[in-house]
Amino acid sequence: MKKKIALLPGDGIGPEVVNEAVKCLDAIASRFGHDFEYIEAPVGAIAIDQTGNPLPESTLEVCREADAILFGSIGDPKYDDDPTAKVRPEQGLLRLRKEMQLYTNIRPVEAYPELIDQSPLKNDRIAGTDFVIYRELTGGIYFGEKWLSEDQESASDLCLYTADEIRRIGHLAFQAAEKRRKKLTLVDKANVLESSRLWRRTITELGKAYPDVQLDFLFVDNAAMQIVLNPSQFDVVLTENMFGDILSDEGSVIAGSIGLLASASVGDSTALFEPIHGSFPQAKGLNIANPVASILSAAMLLDHFNMTEEALVLRQAVSQSLKQGVVTSDLKSGSPFGTSEVGDFIADFAGDDS
Amino acid sequence: MKKKIALLPGDGIGPEVVNEAVKCLDAIASRFGHDFEYIEAPVGAIAIDQTGNPLPESTLEVCREADAILFGSIGDPKYDDDPTAKVRPEQGLLRLRKEMQLYTNIRPVEAYPELIDQSPLKNDRIAGTDFVIYRELTGGIYFGEKWLSEDQESASDLCLYTADEIRRIGHLAFQAAEKRRKKLTLVDKANVLESSRLWRRTITELGKAYPDVQLDFLFVDNAAMQIVLNPSQFDVVLTENMFGDILSDEGSVIAGSIGLLASASVGDSTALFEPIHGSFPQAKGLNIANPVASILSAAMLLDHFNMTEEALVLRQAVSQSLKQGVVTSDLKSGSPFGTSEVGDFIADFAGDDS
Ligand SMILES: [Mg+2]
Ligand SMILES: [Mg+2]
Repeated sequence: MKKKIALLPGDGIGPEVVNEAVKCLDAIASRFGHDFEYIEAPVGAIAIDQTGNPLPESTLEVCREADAILFGSIGDPKYDDDPTAKVRPEQGLLRLRKEMQLYTNIRPVEAYPELIDQSPLKNDRIAGTDFVIYRELTGGIYFGEKWLSEDQESASDLCLYTADEIRRIGHLAFQAAEKRRKKLTLVDKANVLESSRLWRRTITELGKAYPDVQLDFLFVDNAAMQIVLNPSQFDVVLTENMFGDILSDEGSVIAGSIGLLASASVGDSTALFEPIHGSFPQAKGLNIANPVASILSAAMLLDHFNMTEEALVLRQAVSQSLKQGVVTSDLKSGSPFGTSEVGDFIADFAGDDS
Repeated sequence: MKKKIALLPGDGIGPEVVNEAVKCLDAIASRFGHDFEYIEAPVGAIAIDQTGNPLPESTLEVCREADAILFGSIGDPKYDDDPTAKVRPEQGLLRLRKEMQLYTNIRPVEAYPELIDQSPLKNDRIAGTDFVIYRELTGGIYFGEKWLSEDQESASDLCLYTADEIRRIGHLAFQAAEKRRKKLTLVDKANVLESSRLWRRTITELGKAYPDVQLDFLFVDNAAMQIVLNPSQFDVVLTENMFGDILSDEGSVIAGSIGLLASASVGDSTALFEPIHGSFPQAKGLNIANPVASILSAAMLLDHFNMTEEALVLRQAVSQSLKQGVVTSDLKSGSPFGTSEVGDFIADFAGDDS
C-alpha cells in the first residue's frame, strides 16, 4: 500500500524519537511490501525560529495532503520562560488540531508485565490492564460560550453538545470495541447533566448498529474510582471532552510508564499520532530519550491505515525490547542502551520475518 | 459546653453505627465536662414508612434547632428496586442539604499505617497521606441552567459561579489550612474556563488575609494524576462542585478503607456529619457493620464545635483500635469483634483520662 506521511518532529527530543519511529515504519514497509513516503515540515519553536509562526501555512499544506501525521513534541524553554512571548510553540499543535478538525482523541493505557513494579498501583491491581480512552476533543465546556459579568463578580462556561458531534466519535469508539474485546463503557453524569443525558440517549441508539458490543455506563465520579480500583475491567472508554481530559490523565499514570504512552487525534480527513510526553529539552541530542512512545504512536498510525497485522508486529517488537531489557535508562537505571540502540532493536525485530 | 445534636440514624446499618458514635460522644462529654443533648428524628426509608415523606417537616425542625446533625445512612432495597417509586429515601438527604444551605462538603483522606496493605496504591506511595478536600456543594454545573433543544438533538448545562459563593467556602478552607499544615491547593481549569479564572482570582485575593497559608494551584487533570502519583503532597484541597465530586471519590479509594471515611456538609447556621458509606441493608442488625466512619464523623462534629483536643482524643482512640486489631471483620477477616465491641473499645479509650 502507498501512503504519504507528514513528519512533524518539532522541538527538543521530538526529532530523535520520530527518527526511531520512522526506522520502525521503514522496517514494517519493507517486510510487508508497503511504500511510505515521508514529507517533513517544521512546527513549534523551530517553526517560530524559522518563520515566526508555530504552524506555518506550508506545514498545514503538507498535513492536508498527507494520509496521516506523525508528530514529535513541541516546547522550548526560550519561549516557556518568557511571559511576554506573543507566539508560543504549543499554539502550533492546538491550531493544527482545530484546522484539521481532529475531534477524537485516542489514548491507550496498557500495563506491560515488565514495568509493573513502576506502577503506583499494587501489582495485582494493575496487572492485565489494557484499555483505550476515546475522548471528544472539539466540543463541550472547553469550547462553550464564556461569560464574565461587568463587575467581574460572576462567571460562567457553557457545556454544549449536539447529537451529531456525539455520533461521529461514537461510531469510532464502537468500531474500536468491535476489533478489541467488544466492550464499550460510556462515562457521563447523566443523573445530573442534560448534556450527559444526550450522550447516553445518542450512544444507546447508536449501539443498536453494533449488536456485538456490550455497552455499559459509568458516572464520571465512579469512573475516577474504578480506574484506580480495578483498571483491568475496561476495554473501550468513551467520554466527552472534559471528563476525557481528567480520566485520560489519571489513566496515563497508573501503568507507571508515561514515557511509553502514545495518542492519536482523529478527524474525518486525517489523523495525527504523537507521544503524550513533552519535548524534554534538557535531554535533547544526548541519545537518552525513550523512543517507545513515538514508536507506539507509529503503531497507532498503522492501525489507522487498517494495517492490523503490521501494528501487531510492531507492538510485539516493543514488548520484546522490554522483555529483553533493551530499554533506555529511564526504565532501567544504568542501562547501556540509548535512543538509537532501542530503536534499532525494535526495528530489527519488527522487520525480521524469519 | 452545652450542645444540641440532631441524630438522624436513617436506614440499614445507620442506627447501629450512629449508636456507637453517640457512645463515643458521651465518653468525650463526660471526660471533658460537656453537655450533649440528642434529639432523634427519622429520615429516609424509615421516614417514608412512617410519614410518606423522606424528610418530614418535624425532622427539618429538629435540624434547624440543633447545633449540628449526626447522620447515619439512608436507602432501602424496597424503594431502590422499585422503578415506579415516587419518593425515594435519598431525596431526604438532598433536600436536607438544600434546606439547610450546606454549601461546603468536607472529605478527609487519611492513610492509616495499619491498613496500608489494603490500599490499591503501593505502600510507599500512600504512606503519610493526610489531606482534606473542600468541595463547593450548591453551585456550579450541577445546579446551572439546563437546556434541551426541541428536536432533542442539542443539550447544554451551564457552570455558573459568583465570587460570593467562592468566598464563603474559601474562608472555611483557609481556616482549615491554618489549623493544619498551612497549605491550600486550589484545583481548577483556569487555563480554559472563565468560571475557573473567577475562582483563581477570588481565592488569590482572599489569600492575602491568610498570610501563613501557602496557596498553590493545580489544573484538575493534573490533580487527578497527582492523587495517584503522590497523595501525601496535599494538605487542604479546595475546588468547585463537579471537580470536587470526581476528586473526592477518587481520593476515597486510595487509602483502601472506604468503611472508615467520614464527611461533613457545612453551612452558615448548621453542619451535618456522616459516613461516606451507604446503608448496607444486608448487614442490618447483624452487629458486623464497621462503626469507625460514623465515629470519625463524630470527631469532625467535635472539630466543628472547636473542640480540637476532644476531636484529637477521639481520633487517637480510633487509631488505637486499628493498632490493637480491635476491628470489624471487613478489616480483618475472622475478627471476633462486632460493631458494638469496636464502639465500646473506642469509647473506653477516648473516655479514659488516666
Ligand atoms: Mg490534560
Ligand atoms: Mg460522587
